[in-house]
Amino acid sequence: MSAELLEETQTSDDGSVGIVETRSIRLFSADHPLRLASGSEMSSVTVAYETYGTLNADASNAIYICHALTGDAHAAGRHANADRKSGWWDGFIGPGKGIDTNRYFVICANVLGGCQGTTGPGSINPETGLRYCLSFPFLTVRDIVAVHSELVRALGIKTLLAVVGGSLGGMQVLEWAVSFPDQLRAAVVLASAPKLAAQGIAFNAVGRRAIYADPGFCNGDYYESEGPRYGLALARMVAHITYLSEDSIELKFGRRLQDATEFAFSMQKETEFQIESYLHYQGKRFVQRFDANSYLYLTRAMDYFDLSDGFASLAESLSRAQARFLVASYDTDWLFPTSQSRDLVTALLQAGRHVSFLELLCPFGHDSFLIDLDPLAQLVGPFLQRTMDANT
Amino acid sequence: MSAELLEETQTSDDGSVGIVETRSIRLFSADHPLRLASGSEMSSVTVAYETYGTLNADASNAIYICHALTGDAHAAGRHANADRKSGWWDGFIGPGKGIDTNRYFVICANVLGGCQGTTGPGSINPETGLRYCLSFPFLTVRDIVAVHSELVRALGIKTLLAVVGGSLGGMQVLEWAVSFPDQLRAAVVLASAPKLAAQGIAFNAVGRRAIYADPGFCNGDYYESEGPRYGLALARMVAHITYLSEDSIELKFGRRLQDATEFAFSMQKETEFQIESYLHYQGKRFVQRFDANSYLYLTRAMDYFDLSDGFASLAESLSRAQARFLVASYDTDWLFPTSQSRDLVTALLQAGRHVSFLELLCPFGHDSFLIDLDPLAQLVGPFLQRTMDANT
Repeated sequence: MSAELLEETQTSDDGSVGIVETRSIRLFSADHPLRLASGSEMSSVTVAYETYGTLNADASNAIYICHALTGDAHAAGRHANADRKSGWWDGFIGPGKGIDTNRYFVICANVLGGCQGTTGPGSINPETGLRYCLSFPFLTVRDIVAVHSELVRALGIKTLLAVVGGSLGGMQVLEWAVSFPDQLRAAVVLASAPKLAAQGIAFNAVGRRAIYADPGFCNGDYYESEGPRYGLALARMVAHITYLSEDSIELKFGRRLQDATEFAFSMQKETEFQIESYLHYQGKRFVQRFDANSYLYLTRAMDYFDLSDGFASLAESLSRAQARFLVASYDTDWLFPTSQSRDLVTALLQAGRHVSFLELLCPFGHDSFLIDLDPLAQLVGPFLQRTMDANT
Repeated sequence: MSAELLEETQTSDDGSVGIVETRSIRLFSADHPLRLASGSEMSSVTVAYETYGTLNADASNAIYICHALTGDAHAAGRHANADRKSGWWDGFIGPGKGIDTNRYFVICANVLGGCQGTTGPGSINPETGLRYCLSFPFLTVRDIVAVHSELVRALGIKTLLAVVGGSLGGMQVLEWAVSFPDQLRAAVVLASAPKLAAQGIAFNAVGRRAIYADPGFCNGDYYESEGPRYGLALARMVAHITYLSEDSIELKFGRRLQDATEFAFSMQKETEFQIESYLHYQGKRFVQRFDANSYLYLTRAMDYFDLSDGFASLAESLSRAQARFLVASYDTDWLFPTSQSRDLVTALLQAGRHVSFLELLCPFGHDSFLIDLDPLAQLVGPFLQRTMDANT
């Protein structure tokens, strides 16, 4: 399999990794099950993943990308020339880009519990022949990372050059650095935190309530029907607000009306302002690409995440890590504010770890790590290069 | 009627206005209808209101309180000795308090479109004998204030000493100062803004979507059934988050679990963290006291509010005002941040108005104006006294 796995991804001249393919691999077995934090076990997990660039001879140039809450394995390139959109971090991953695929071999996989090819609540439970629905085992960020870690082993890579991720992806990076310290040499944590704050839990709770309260939810067993599409759209609407900064919403939409120059003065017109129309559109679009059960499981995994769990302190947990850390926050991110990155950096320093930290200035709020890629490239590129150089 | 209206409210020794009564008055007529901003007319509006303290001989000591989105006329005292809770601003209104009922005559009325005694979408339309539901005329902050203004005239008061309000109440104060400049000598605007920002519209849109999407909504005609109770509760949950500061949620709830010392590791447990349980409780409690249609109309009125509408600038609109202004914001209020109060104060200064402005330091976010009443009393008390003194 390794020849197929490691074949060079087709590249084009425009700085893209070109046409890519999502591959699938089955991990774990009855003899070697995935042991979850809840105590459950899974004897088979299918993982959807993509790779870009070429693994070098000593397998020392592999970088693992951890996606955020609703991301997927398709981080860069296109699946077909006709695709309208590239992967979700295409501006950051590619030849000559922040994560330079001319130098590095990049891996990105859909998370456990997801709905983009990796085993999740919408998958068939091999033991029953039926979809898991809410019988899917409860999962944590540690479980997600345990699957990533297994994938890396399956790809024949002993040590990753770096693990990189933003938001929930950054939580995975942190968990990886602590739970599998031998497996990575550098950790890049963007717009994230060592635990989810109460306000984050609160917004997640609202999203879940919207799904649970939707009559289409049917206690999670909705795959043969319409499903909780109103609830899921609503969950996305409220989450989407938290991804944007107040200033960026004001600048982009302000109080401008949608398709009108004057107020309608009617309660029958639900989307009168552009910001309303935009949020409704985001909600509807999200329902087309995401599964409500996955949303429930993954937001809960986020809620549960607290890197210091089981340790006397955050610093003690981080003292297990061996990686060099790069931590970046965004000044306008109010979902994962800089103060939380500072707490992380303080604990890393207390633990005697190597850490670089920068608060980036960008108006786009939490989503900045997906949008403002040039400053990120200037930060991450040299950091990866230094880590690579330190190898010799 | 005036004797009854103006009778002294019973007071007690504990700094409370004592036992109070919500009164009801019918305003407007076919000959003198309420003309709404939408162009509609209403020939009859019932208003629920309360008064505290005694109107002096020249009716120069009357202060009008404008309540926020989900408030009501019951601002101070108790309706019965057995009441567990006092009015919503009882700590601020009473003998010797911030708004001293030993000196001032205080009026508070439920807003037009509300559901606590004043005509709203749940009221009977006299023309049809049926509840208005969504046939209730679309309303704006200006319409709400036009009803307040009429009530003041009906009470035989020509000029108010002051109009005071926070949040949506502050918007009413601003509108009053511009639309009926002769009717007030001072305007106290707390935790408010001269227009609702896009982020505020966004959160309102989410709340309305939750109500509209609830199958119990029945296009607003739900009074004989259960109604959109899940949707309304959800709307309250998300709004409630915006009323609190990130720090206050963190301090009050943090990541503490509800009724457990360990994680449940189960998707069947929806309220695992204390913050979740708290938000669910707030949602359920809200459904018991508030009407979903009123929520739709009043949030829309908030969305529409822009004091500069119809003027070349905010300063130009404020140049119509004659009142002395006191503007106060809270450092941790992210729904109506200090920057919005600063814009207001700048425009007031440009318009040549008298304005005092203070950013108060309080950890409780937007709700601070309902909670942290001593600093508010120290600010508002002397301001009212100065205004009163300037009368002579």
